[in-house]
Amino acid sequence: MSATPVIAASDSQTIAFPELVTLLKQIFLNHGTSPDVAAVMANNCASAQRDGAQSHGVFRMPGYVSTLDSGWVDGKAVPIVEDVASGFVRVDACNGFAQPALAAARPLLVEKARSAGIAVLAIRNSHHFAALWPDVEPFADEGLVALSVVNSMTCVVPHGADRPLFGTNPIAFAAPRADGPPIVFDLATSAIAHGDVQIAARKGERVPPGTGVDSLGQPTLDPRAILEGGALLPFGGHKGSALSMMVELLAAALTGGNFSFEFDWSNHPGAKTPWTGQLLIVIDPSKTAGQNFAERSQELVRQMHAAGLRRLPGDRRHRARARAEEEGIVIEVAELARLRRLVQG
Amino acid sequence: MSATPVIAASDSQTIAFPELVTLLKQIFLNHGTSPDVAAVMANNCASAQRDGAQSHGVFRMPGYVSTLDSGWVDGKAVPIVEDVASGFVRVDACNGFAQPALAAARPLLVEKARSAGIAVLAIRNSHHFAALWPDVEPFADEGLVALSVVNSMTCVVPHGADRPLFGTNPIAFAAPRADGPPIVFDLATSAIAHGDVQIAARKGERVPPGTGVDSLGQPTLDPRAILEGGALLPFGGHKGSALSMMVELLAAALTGGNFSFEFDWSNHPGAKTPWTGQLLIVIDPSKTAGQNFAERSQELVRQMHAAGLRRLPGDRRHRARARAEEEGIVIEVAELARLRRLVQG
Repeated sequence: MSATPVIAASDSQTIAFPELVTLLKQIFLNHGTSPDVAAVMANNCASAQRDGAQSHGVFRMPGYVSTLDSGWVDGKAVPIVEDVASGFVRVDACNGFAQPALAAARPLLVEKARSAGIAVLAIRNSHHFAALWPDVEPFADEGLVALSVVNSMTCVVPHGADRPLFGTNPIAFAAPRADGPPIVFDLATSAIAHGDVQIAARKGERVPPGTGVDSLGQPTLDPRAILEGGALLPFGGHKGSALSMMVELLAAALTGGNFSFEFDWSNHPGAKTPWTGQLLIVIDPSKTAGQNFAERSQELVRQMHAAGLRRLPGDRRHRARARAEEEGIVIEVAELARLRRLVQG
Repeated sequence: MSATPVIAASDSQTIAFPELVTLLKQIFLNHGTSPDVAAVMANNCASAQRDGAQSHGVFRMPGYVSTLDSGWVDGKAVPIVEDVASGFVRVDACNGFAQPALAAARPLLVEKARSAGIAVLAIRNSHHFAALWPDVEPFADEGLVALSVVNSMTCVVPHGADRPLFGTNPIAFAAPRADGPPIVFDLATSAIAHGDVQIAARKGERVPPGTGVDSLGQPTLDPRAILEGGALLPFGGHKGSALSMMVELLAAALTGGNFSFEFDWSNHPGAKTPWTGQLLIVIDPSKTAGQNFAERSQELVRQMHAAGLRRLPGDRRHRARARAEEEGIVIEVAELARLRRLVQG
């Protein structure tokens, strides 16, 4: 590594995006992935770090390493892309990560969306342990509208139930607009993302009320009680719970993947990545009647600002990205040292 | 009318579904709709009443009548269906109701979904004033998975904004399952449906905390303060707000319809129906890898019950429907009298 980081603060420094990608790629390679998989995963994880998504950036690397070392996920899997119908692509990720499966199917998916007006990608036998917005944003960069859902692992109590069943089951959406970066959001259907509970536990902070329950099913503000035998709650009561159920149906039942409660990793100590499925829907807005879609979405943004909204969903990420491109990515010194130790394998 | 209703209680009686449809059809016809439009709308509204959806049943009829009488909506509109691509159908509802536009495009939409694996229906220039689940449930009855969104009229303050911009913007979803009626939900992205605020106001009841603000933007529990110059809040804070924004983009920008803030009905006193757009996505799960979809969704239902969930989304509606089919639809005597007066035109 030839990084010559600028000291940003006493306990943090900066690293350029390409250097972070190279470092993360080396970690993936040294823990048994193929070069193709290492390239996709390193780029994905470095992008999250660059965009300020703390809970899905390099914070995830020890989890990737331990799951690879456990033999739970196949880091050398070669996804099998199946062309099923004029708007339907299936991918068997073959027990590999979801992102290389998406990358393999992406050209066919885009071609179908532009030709049919809409297309769906159903990924199964896949492990998704990352933020979901990096999966949808590139479609909007190409002028397409994209929606994705992924199910994860049992840690959310359905509204009205007694014990956890659903995963954090995020929904991500991206749409192009005329005068700025795409409109993008990525939201867990749980009251809080699992990674944020882990970060709160590590920092010794409390979580907001309504976030989760302890092992006895009682409401708690202690992130460790949630992580150790407790569970999360859906966001927004029965509505978030219904959406989480929809994610199980779309990401698992409709792809041929596992529900969040179906996989058993007990024989793989250190396994961290849910072995489930992912669904993406891509729509070509050039098929839309009337005015250009990107002009219309720009008009919505204008009106949202006029209504007093200072920050759009995704704005914080885009600002962090712009700053990182100017000044490098801020990273804690200790974190960078941990990453360098992970390279050793 | 040949109804010979059984007295169900001192202030309510029952009416058979076909008789209610006939009564509502006559109201629509006498207020200027075509027979085709009257048939679709009467069936839709009677179904909501039958299924116990108070806020979207016959409670809506005075609104339909006043909007038709105002000249705001064209009750005789003949929707124009456009076959745009192998997975994309557009409909210009021509300033008519959305439901006849969906009915006109439905055969083509289903054909495309079965052939391409997924298809989208983009309805514009349409008025939607009803529940959204009746639009998706019939697809699940045919073994398809359906998702729909519709935007409405400015009455929801985006999270972090100062004044209302979005509509109540519901999302509805339906999926088949092996051993029971489809899994169906229909949720407003506002903290409460607009119809439920109206019902609370009529009954003199308060609304739950977090539902809305008064005309000064201050939180209120008074439904009249919300209706008279106040506004609703999104459900689930920034997440529900992001979903509501997505609905504006899908139902308006992607269809060529109006955003919730764009139409001006000030020249049509009595106008009640939002003049916007609607999007439906239909997926054919027979394209799914692995086990039959309906068996898989049944497995999810089994596990949800095992986790302690007593009632699935949609269960209450299906129970109300079964009871109505046995005993007739319970309706207040005064409500039925009001409906009979509306027939007079």
